[in-house]
Amino acid sequence: MAFPTHLRLFEMGARDGLQNEPGAVIDTAIKIELINRLSECGLRHIEAASFVSPKWVPQMGDAAAVMNGINRKAGVTYSALTPNLQGLEGAIAAGADEVAVFGAASEAFTQKNINCSISESLERFAPVIERAQACNIRVRGYVSTVMGCPYEGETDPAQVAAVSRELLDMGCYEISLGDTIGTGTPLKAKQMLEAVSKQVPIEKLAAHFHDTYGQALANLYAVIEEGIAVIDASVAGLGGCPYAKGASGNVATEDVLYMLNGLGIDTGVDLEKLAQTGHWITAQLGRTSGSKVALAIGCQ
Amino acid sequence: MAFPTHLRLFEMGARDGLQNEPGAVIDTAIKIELINRLSECGLRHIEAASFVSPKWVPQMGDAAAVMNGINRKAGVTYSALTPNLQGLEGAIAAGADEVAVFGAASEAFTQKNINCSISESLERFAPVIERAQACNIRVRGYVSTVMGCPYEGETDPAQVAAVSRELLDMGCYEISLGDTIGTGTPLKAKQMLEAVSKQVPIEKLAAHFHDTYGQALANLYAVIEEGIAVIDASVAGLGGCPYAKGASGNVATEDVLYMLNGLGIDTGVDLEKLAQTGHWITAQLGRTSGSKVALAIGCQ
Repeated sequence: MAFPTHLRLFEMGARDGLQNEPGAVIDTAIKIELINRLSECGLRHIEAASFVSPKWVPQMGDAAAVMNGINRKAGVTYSALTPNLQGLEGAIAAGADEVAVFGAASEAFTQKNINCSISESLERFAPVIERAQACNIRVRGYVSTVMGCPYEGETDPAQVAAVSRELLDMGCYEISLGDTIGTGTPLKAKQMLEAVSKQVPIEKLAAHFHDTYGQALANLYAVIEEGIAVIDASVAGLGGCPYAKGASGNVATEDVLYMLNGLGIDTGVDLEKLAQTGHWITAQLGRTSGSKVALAIGCQ
Repeated sequence: MAFPTHLRLFEMGARDGLQNEPGAVIDTAIKIELINRLSECGLRHIEAASFVSPKWVPQMGDAAAVMNGINRKAGVTYSALTPNLQGLEGAIAAGADEVAVFGAASEAFTQKNINCSISESLERFAPVIERAQACNIRVRGYVSTVMGCPYEGETDPAQVAAVSRELLDMGCYEISLGDTIGTGTPLKAKQMLEAVSKQVPIEKLAAHFHDTYGQALANLYAVIEEGIAVIDASVAGLGGCPYAKGASGNVATEDVLYMLNGLGIDTGVDLEKLAQTGHWITAQLGRTSGSKVALAIGCQ
């Protein structure tokens, strides 16, 4: 077993995180400052906005203002979620470096979330991916519910593999595997990854694990052992769990980074700065950081 | 790699946990009810009391009353911490099934904690272990600071191995390896275990990892891969961290159990009942459970 020497952290806090924080809509200026602080920590991949209809997700109604307001740091990729062509045009106009589409491995989840089948959802993405490629913009594919579904229970790894393969074939450069409800455990994570990596080369896969049941780091360690070298995480664990009140969602980037540092895996990210950024943003939200590392280090 | 089919959970909440909870002294009746509830969850090894001078640890001044008050469930081992002969006599009089002595792998930690060297501390344990053995009472040995020390920083795995070996040779039936400040990461845990298991057979070792930096489950997974089959944990994560205010100490038994269930490893413990026990005791303490699994399951 050899760990990768380098691993890419994909920072989710400013979009996935803030969008799922219970409570108030966050000021555009706060979002901009968060993204700027994150890039100063050495993060090179930051999900910055979501170009969805503000009718459905009012928290993200300022996507263009956010994208236009940030200091573009050289070498940093600022990505945006684009569920449809209208969103894609908005993201392109705002100068997104990369966009993303969001699918799921569970039929019930897809039906409840976007009122169509998995295969219909993929059809909807096709023109988005085509248009992005025509503009030379890379597209990332998310697959959610890869280790369990709030409506169906268990997820069949073969189904995760099939959806991931379709997104790859449609042109996504990378597939991020989301344990949306955080019910995965290390062996399940390995088995899921084994099934998916038969369809998609492991270097095109990312792990996006939630910490709802406290399992995220153990699961990440298990898939790093298998060769995963891209991890999605959210500073301070921003983003709650919509399926269990008071429970956690995204794994905290600080906690992942602490583990990676201990494994001797380079990420280029400054842990101390990141922990303080997490303290800063959670102070804005009126709560304490969801990162255990940040709590142990303390607020400076 | 084959996981063990069965693993023994050693429940720390009622002693190690409650003793380190910030704030008030807990009523004896609450301690007794907690221990009784824990045994009803299927836990077969419960640390119930500490026979130390109430001058130093007033929270544990009711050790004899606790031991005498609990319902002794058949098949359950109720253990007590006994730092000296006086404590041992108290534990024996109160009917402890098993006792424990508490050492450390760091000279600085031992000096600050009990004002002597490691080798002097081991000399003090010798008569305790001898007398316990004469009474046919098994002695467990704890080694703290196995992956880091609050005063010295890094801990040399060779030092952990040496202290563990001495405790074994003195008559301890099992050595519990404590990551007291929770700074360990999976690779460090494996390397530490590798050094220790050259001196002490792995089936006589237990992992006692703290979750201060969120790493406990990943570290436990890493050592389970190496063959560890005894884990110390604390319901609801009872017990804070004396070295970082607001940070966690003991890993929550519920979170460990959830992972073990996912790995197909049998413990005989009922997760749902355990999570509710954690909600109950933390409600007595006026806070929410420190177990992410318990928060995700909710309070019923």
